Amino acid sequence: MNKLAIQNKSSDDLPTGKTGAVELYMQGLGKVAQNAARVLASAETEQKNFALEAIASKLLGSAQALAEANSVDMEAGKARSLDAALLDRLELTPARIQGMVDGLLQVVELPDPIGEISDLQTRPSGIELGKMRMPLGVVGIIYESRPNVTADAAGLCLKSGNASLLRGGSEALNSNLAIAKCIRQGLLEARLPADAVQVVDTVDRAAVGAMLVMNQYLDVIIPRGGRGLIERVANESKVPVIKHFDGVCHVYIDKAADLVMAEKIAFNSKTNRYGVCNAMETLLVHSDIAAKVLPGLAMRYKKEGVELRGCERTLEIISDVFAATEKDWYEEYLAPVLSIRIVNSLDQAMNHITQYGSSHTDSIVTEDKGVADRFLREVNSSSVMVNASTRFADGFEYGLGAEIGISTDCLHVRGPVGLEGLTNQKYVVLGNGQIR
Amino acid sequence: MNKLAIQNKSSDDLPTGKTGAVELYMQGLGKVAQNAARVLASAETEQKNFALEAIASKLLGSAQALAEANSVDMEAGKARSLDAALLDRLELTPARIQGMVDGLLQVVELPDPIGEISDLQTRPSGIELGKMRMPLGVVGIIYESRPNVTADAAGLCLKSGNASLLRGGSEALNSNLAIAKCIRQGLLEARLPADAVQVVDTVDRAAVGAMLVMNQYLDVIIPRGGRGLIERVANESKVPVIKHFDGVCHVYIDKAADLVMAEKIAFNSKTNRYGVCNAMETLLVHSDIAAKVLPGLAMRYKKEGVELRGCERTLEIISDVFAATEKDWYEEYLAPVLSIRIVNSLDQAMNHITQYGSSHTDSIVTEDKGVADRFLREVNSSSVMVNASTRFADGFEYGLGAEIGISTDCLHVRGPVGLEGLTNQKYVVLGNGQIR
Repeated sequence: MNKLAIQNKSSDDLPTGKTGAVELYMQGLGKVAQNAARVLASAETEQKNFALEAIASKLLGSAQALAEANSVDMEAGKARSLDAALLDRLELTPARIQGMVDGLLQVVELPDPIGEISDLQTRPSGIELGKMRMPLGVVGIIYESRPNVTADAAGLCLKSGNASLLRGGSEALNSNLAIAKCIRQGLLEARLPADAVQVVDTVDRAAVGAMLVMNQYLDVIIPRGGRGLIERVANESKVPVIKHFDGVCHVYIDKAADLVMAEKIAFNSKTNRYGVCNAMETLLVHSDIAAKVLPGLAMRYKKEGVELRGCERTLEIISDVFAATEKDWYEEYLAPVLSIRIVNSLDQAMNHITQYGSSHTDSIVTEDKGVADRFLREVNSSSVMVNASTRFADGFEYGLGAEIGISTDCLHVRGPVGLEGLTNQKYVVLGNGQIR
Repeated sequence: MNKLAIQNKSSDDLPTGKTGAVELYMQGLGKVAQNAARVLASAETEQKNFALEAIASKLLGSAQALAEANSVDMEAGKARSLDAALLDRLELTPARIQGMVDGLLQVVELPDPIGEISDLQTRPSGIELGKMRMPLGVVGIIYESRPNVTADAAGLCLKSGNASLLRGGSEALNSNLAIAKCIRQGLLEARLPADAVQVVDTVDRAAVGAMLVMNQYLDVIIPRGGRGLIERVANESKVPVIKHFDGVCHVYIDKAADLVMAEKIAFNSKTNRYGVCNAMETLLVHSDIAAKVLPGLAMRYKKEGVELRGCERTLEIISDVFAATEKDWYEEYLAPVLSIRIVNSLDQAMNHITQYGSSHTDSIVTEDKGVADRFLREVNSSSVMVNASTRFADGFEYGLGAEIGISTDCLHVRGPVGLEGLTNQKYVVLGNGQIR
C-alpha cells in the first residue's frame, strides 16, 4: 500500500462531514463526557445528591458573578436588537437563580432510578430473570436562550447517572458558562468527574452539526426550542433523538358530557396559561349539545379576551366568531386564540384529532363510560384524558418532578420526560450454574 | 404566484431523495399500512388471535404452493451460484413450514400487551394517572434470505397491534410472496385489513433506500441480517431504528469462582451452538485461578474441535494455543474459535468488556456477592449474568415468546425484543372535572 492510500484510509476513519477545529473540539468534549459517564453510571445516590446540593449552593453563592455574566449577554442582545420576548427569556433575575437552586434541591428529593433490580421471576430453566435501570450514557441537549435550562438539564442528567453535553444559544453563552462553572465546582466537591456536565464554549453554529453526527460519543440528543431547531435536529441527527414537536391539544365535549364540568374544563384548558404546549388549541363539540354549551362558553372566552375561530356550524350558534380555515385546525396558537369545530360523533372527533393533532394531549368530557373507554384506547397521544384539563400533562403534576421535555415521539418515552425517561432497562440473570 | 413557483412548491412537498417509480410504490405501501395500523391498534385480542390461527391454517394448507414458490427461488439461487449456507437458509422445508405454523400458534398463547391500564395512582390534584400500552404503528422490517422471518415477524407485529411492511431478500421474493398470500387470506378471514401485513413486491434495491426515508409512514425500522445491512440502515435511516449489532459475549471467571461451575458455564457458552449471537466469543480468567481452570477447559474445547487463541499469559499455561492479536478481542467468530485472556482483577475484566464488547451479553462466574453485584451494576450490556451460560439471552428463555431480534441499542428496548418491545406506553388521566 503506498503512502497516499494509507492517508486515504486514515481520513476514512474520521467522522463524516467537515472536521474543522469546531468538530475536533466537539469530539474532544464527547470523548471526555463518555469517560465521565462511565464513572457516573456507578456513582452512589448519596454522592449524586451531594453534588446536586453543592451545585445549588455554588449557584446561590455566585449570584453576583451570574448577574455580571448575564448582563454581558443582555447588553449584547440589546445591541443586536433581540426582541423583547427573547430578552425576557435570556434574563437571569434573582428569582430565576433561586428557581434553579430550588429545582436542583427538588431533584435531590426524587428517588434514584438507577441500579435497583425489579420484576425478578424464576424461569423454568432455574435462572432468576430481572431488570435493572441504567443511565443512557451521554445526553446531548441543544437549547435556546433560557440559561436556567443549563442547571435544570444538568441536574436531571446527573441524578439519572448520565453525563451531559449542553449546547445553549449563542446569545446566552456567558450566562451558561457562569452556571457551568458552579456545576463543575459542585461536581469536584462531590469527587465526581467535572466533565460529567459540559457546556459547549463556542458560538460557532457548526458545533450543532458536529453534535448531530457524534454517535460514537452521544447516546441521545434532546432538542429544546422552536420548531426550526427541532426539525433540523430530527432530519440531520445520526444520534437517536427524543423530541417535542407541537402541542395541538384538543378537548372534545361529548353529547353525554356533564355540561357544567365541560364548560369548566374547556375554559381552564385554554385560559389557565396561553403560551404552554399543554393548552387546548381546538375545542370539538358534539352537535347534540353544541347549542347548549357553546353560547355560555363563548361569553366566558370573550370576557377573557380569547379570539374564537369556528367552523360553519359554530358560526350559526354563536356570534362574534371568525370563520376557521383548514389551516386553523393544524395551528398551535400559544396565544388567546381558540378554534372550535362541531362534530356529529365520537368517531368524527377522533378522526379530527388523528388528522390535525400532534399526539401531545387530548381530553374528552363525557359521563358515558363506553365512550370514554374508546377515546382512551383509540386516541394515540402521549397523554389521553377523561374529564380533566389538558393542563395536567406536566412532569410535576404527574409526580415525575422536573421534566427535561415532553416527548411526542413514539419510541422510548412519551409525554413528560423525567428521570426515568433518561434511563433504560437491561436484563439481569442470576443463576447457580445453569447451562443450556 | 406564477405557475413555475407553484410547481416548485409542490415538488418541495415530495419526500427527499429520488422519487422514481419504486419510491412512489413504496410510499403507496406505507400509506395503506398506516391506515391499516389505525384499525389494528384497536382490534380486540380475540380477533387478532383468530387471524393468527387463520394464517397458520392457510400456511399448512398451502404447503404445495409454498414449496413450488420456494423451488423457483432455489433454482434461481443455484443458477446465480449462491453459496451453500445461503441456499440452506433460503430453503422452505416441510419442517420449516411447520415451524412457522408453530410460531404463530405460540404467539396466539402470549398475553396481548395492548390496551390495559397499569400503574394507576391518584395524584394530589385528584386525577388518577396510569399508563396504557399502545402499538408503535407501522413497523418496517428489512431482512435477508430466511423466508420464515416473513411469518414470524408478521405474527409478532399483528399480535402487538402493529402493521408491518416487510422487505425480504430479493433471492427469497417468490417464497415471501407465497407466504404473504396466506397472511392476507388469514387477515381477511378475521375481518382485519389485508394491508396490515405487506411484503414489498420488487427486487429493486432502491426499495430499501425508500423505506429509510419514509418517516411519515413508518414508526420504526428493524433490520435483520449481516453487519453491512445493519450499518447501512443505521447510517441512512430517518426512521428510528431498533438494531442488533455484534454479539461479542464474554464469560469472566473470577478468582472466587466455583471452578467446576466455571468450567461447565464456559464450555456451554461456547460450544452449545456456534453460529448464534449469544455464544461466548472471549473467555476472561482471573490470574489467581487461571492455572487451575484453564488446562482442563482447554482439553475439553480441543476435544470438541474449538480453536483457541490466547493472550501471552494464556500461552504460558496451556499448549496448542494460537497467539491472539488485538483484532481477536473485537471478533464475533460465530464459529468454533475462542479467544482467552488472563486478567488481574474484576476492574480489568470489566474494562476489557467495555472496550471490546458489543453490549450484548456478558456473564461472571463467582461466589463473591460483592464482586457479582459490581459486575451486574457496572457492565452495561443488554443482558448481564451471574453464574449462568450466556446462551440464556433469548426470547424464549426469557419468557417473551418469539423474538423479532435482540437489541444492542440503548434507547427504547434492550436485549431480546418480543411483543412488549413493539409497543410504547402513553399516559392516561382519569378525572372528574379537575382543572388547574
